[in-house]
Amino acid sequence: MAAAAANGSAGGADTREEFKRIYGVLKAELLGDPAFEFTDSSRQWIDRMLDYNVLGGKCNRGLSVVDSYKLLKGANVLGEEEMFLTSTLGWCIEWLQAYFLVLDDIMDDSHTRRGQPCWFRLPQVGSIAINDGVILRNHITRMLRFHFKGKPYYADLLDLFNEVEFKTASGQLLDLITTHEGEKDLTKYNIGVHRRIVQYKTAYYSFYLPVACALLLSGEDLVNYAAVEDILVKMGIYFQVQDDYLDCYGDPEFIGKIGTDIEDYKCSWLVVQALERADESQKHVLFENYGKKDPACVAKVKNLYRELNLEAIFQDYESESYKKLIADIEAQPSIAVQNVLKSFLHKIYKRQK
Amino acid sequence: MAAAAANGSAGGADTREEFKRIYGVLKAELLGDPAFEFTDSSRQWIDRMLDYNVLGGKCNRGLSVVDSYKLLKGANVLGEEEMFLTSTLGWCIEWLQAYFLVLDDIMDDSHTRRGQPCWFRLPQVGSIAINDGVILRNHITRMLRFHFKGKPYYADLLDLFNEVEFKTASGQLLDLITTHEGEKDLTKYNIGVHRRIVQYKTAYYSFYLPVACALLLSGEDLVNYAAVEDILVKMGIYFQVQDDYLDCYGDPEFIGKIGTDIEDYKCSWLVVQALERADESQKHVLFENYGKKDPACVAKVKNLYRELNLEAIFQDYESESYKKLIADIEAQPSIAVQNVLKSFLHKIYKRQK
Repeated sequence: MAAAAANGSAGGADTREEFKRIYGVLKAELLGDPAFEFTDSSRQWIDRMLDYNVLGGKCNRGLSVVDSYKLLKGANVLGEEEMFLTSTLGWCIEWLQAYFLVLDDIMDDSHTRRGQPCWFRLPQVGSIAINDGVILRNHITRMLRFHFKGKPYYADLLDLFNEVEFKTASGQLLDLITTHEGEKDLTKYNIGVHRRIVQYKTAYYSFYLPVACALLLSGEDLVNYAAVEDILVKMGIYFQVQDDYLDCYGDPEFIGKIGTDIEDYKCSWLVVQALERADESQKHVLFENYGKKDPACVAKVKNLYRELNLEAIFQDYESESYKKLIADIEAQPSIAVQNVLKSFLHKIYKRQK
Repeated sequence: MAAAAANGSAGGADTREEFKRIYGVLKAELLGDPAFEFTDSSRQWIDRMLDYNVLGGKCNRGLSVVDSYKLLKGANVLGEEEMFLTSTLGWCIEWLQAYFLVLDDIMDDSHTRRGQPCWFRLPQVGSIAINDGVILRNHITRMLRFHFKGKPYYADLLDLFNEVEFKTASGQLLDLITTHEGEKDLTKYNIGVHRRIVQYKTAYYSFYLPVACALLLSGEDLVNYAAVEDILVKMGIYFQVQDDYLDCYGDPEFIGKIGTDIEDYKCSWLVVQALERADESQKHVLFENYGKKDPACVAKVKNLYRELNLEAIFQDYESESYKKLIADIEAQPSIAVQNVLKSFLHKIYKRQK
C-alpha cells in the first residue's frame, strides 16, 4: 500500500487493466441503449464525448470502489461478476466526476483539463457541452438500471448517488456565489465558509461515495455507517486543505500545474488562515492584492503568507488531522472498515501532489 | 372539458389554487433541506431562482397529473393526502421542465422566456445558471425522497423520471447536432429525423410522464401500459407538429410570440414537408433562403410553403392524426384510461395556441 500511496494511485496493474476493459463494455451498452433511437452521428458524438471526458484522469475514485470492496471482503481477487459490479459503480463515480468537470469548466471559463482543451472549447462543441454534461449524468442512472435493477439495494444506490449529487451541486453553488458573485469582498471568507464549500463540493463524492458504494455492494445498510461517513468527509476536507496548500507551496513540476488560487480570488484555506491571523495593516495588504493577476500583487500575498508562517501552521494542521482521523478510525468496531479508512488516509497523508 | 380545452388550461380554479399552495410547501421543505447547510445567501439565491424559473408557466403538465389521477380514480375531489402527493409529482414535472428550459435557453442563446429575460441573462446570474439547472434537477429527487420513499412504487418512480430525462436529453442532443453543428445542410432534414427529435425531446416528458405518474400513484405497474405510452408519445408528436405549424401560421397576438423557426434554421415539420414535395428549383429556393435572418429570405420560404399548399397538408395531417388516435384510444380496455387519453387529446385538437 505504501508504494501505491506515494504516487497517489489505486488498484494494482491487473485491476487497473480489467477496470479499463469494463469501461469498454459499459460504453458499448450505452451506445446501444434501446431507450433512444441513435442515429450514426449521435452515436459517434457520444462515443467521442465519453472518451474525451470520462477517460484521461487517474481513476482514483473509481478504482477505490474496487479496493474498498476487496478490503471489506478480505479478498485479494474478486470473481468475474463481483469485479464487474464493483467496477461499474467505480465507473459511475468517474462519470459523475466527468459530468461535474464538463460543467464546472464552462462556469469557471477554464481552458485546459487533464492536459487537453476543455470539452466546451472544441469549436464543434461549444455550449452543446452543457447537454453533454446532462447526458453524462443520465448515463449513471442507465448503468445502474442495466446492472442493479432488482438488487435489494437498488433504491438505496439511486438515493446515494442522488444525495451525493445534490450535496455537490449545493457546495458548487456556495462556491460560485461566494467567489464569483458581486464585488470582491474578503470579509465573506472565513473558515466556516471554507469548510462548507469543500465539504459539500468535494468530500462527499470523492471520499464518502466510493466507500458507500462498496458498503452497499457488501450488503450493508448505510444507516449503520454514519460514523464512517463522518470520518470520510473529514478526510475529504483535509484532502482539499492539502490541495489549497499545494497550489501555493507544491512543486509545479511535480503536481503538473502552476497554482493560481491567489490570482483567481479563491476561498483557499491559506487566505482564510491569513485573514484570521492578520493585523489591520496585514489585512490591508490582503484586501489590496488578493485576486489580482499582477505578479507583483501575488508576490505581496505570498510574502504575507510567509510572514504569518502559514507553512508551519499547515504542518500542524496536517499532523493534528492525521492524529484525530486515526483515533476516529480505531474507534470503529470492524477491522475491515478500519482497513478501508486507513487505506484512504495513507494514500493522502503528506502527499506532495 | 371543452371550455378548458379551448384555452389549453388544465385543472379547475380550486385545483389550480391548491396546486399553487403546495408549491409553497415544497419550496419551504427544499429551503430547509437538512442534506445541505444553507447560508442566508445561498437560501435566498435558491428561493429567488425557484420563483423565477419554476413559476410563470401555465402548469399544464403539472396539473395534468392531478386531472389524470382524478379520471383514473373516477373522483371529482381528492383527499388532502392524495391531492398533496399528486400535486407533488405534478410539481416534479414542472421542476423538470424548468431545468430543461434554463439550460436550453443558454444553449440556444435565447433572450426571453415566459415574458421575462432568461435566467442566465440576469447580470448577477450568468453561467451560474448552469449549476442552478443542476440544482433544479436535484430538487426532483429530493421531493421524491421526502414524500415517496417507502412507497412500493418508489424505485419505479425514480426509474420513470430517470428514463424520461434520458430520452429528453438524447432528443436535445439530436436537435443540437442536427440543427446547430457544422455547416447548414438541409439534406440532413427529413421526416424521420424530425419525428425522432420531437418524440424524444418533447413527447415523453410532456405527454407520457404526467399520465405515467398518475398510473403509478394509482398502484398500476407501467409494464402493462406500453400501448398507453405509445398513444401519448404519438399525441406528443402531433402536438409538436401543431407547434411547428403555429410558429408560421398562428396568430402572433394569440400565441403571444412571433415565430422564428425559418430564421433559426429549425428542423420544423413544415420545412420537412416542403423538402419532400419540392422540385429541384423549389429545393434551390429553400437551400438559398432557409435559416437566414433577412425578412426577404423568410418571405421567399413562406411563399414556397404557400405554393406547396402546406396549410392544407397540415389540415389533412391533423384530422388523420385525430382519427388514428381516437381509434387507438378506443381500443384500450379501461374506460378510465380512455377518459384520460381523450381528455389530453381534446385539450390539444385544433388548438390555435
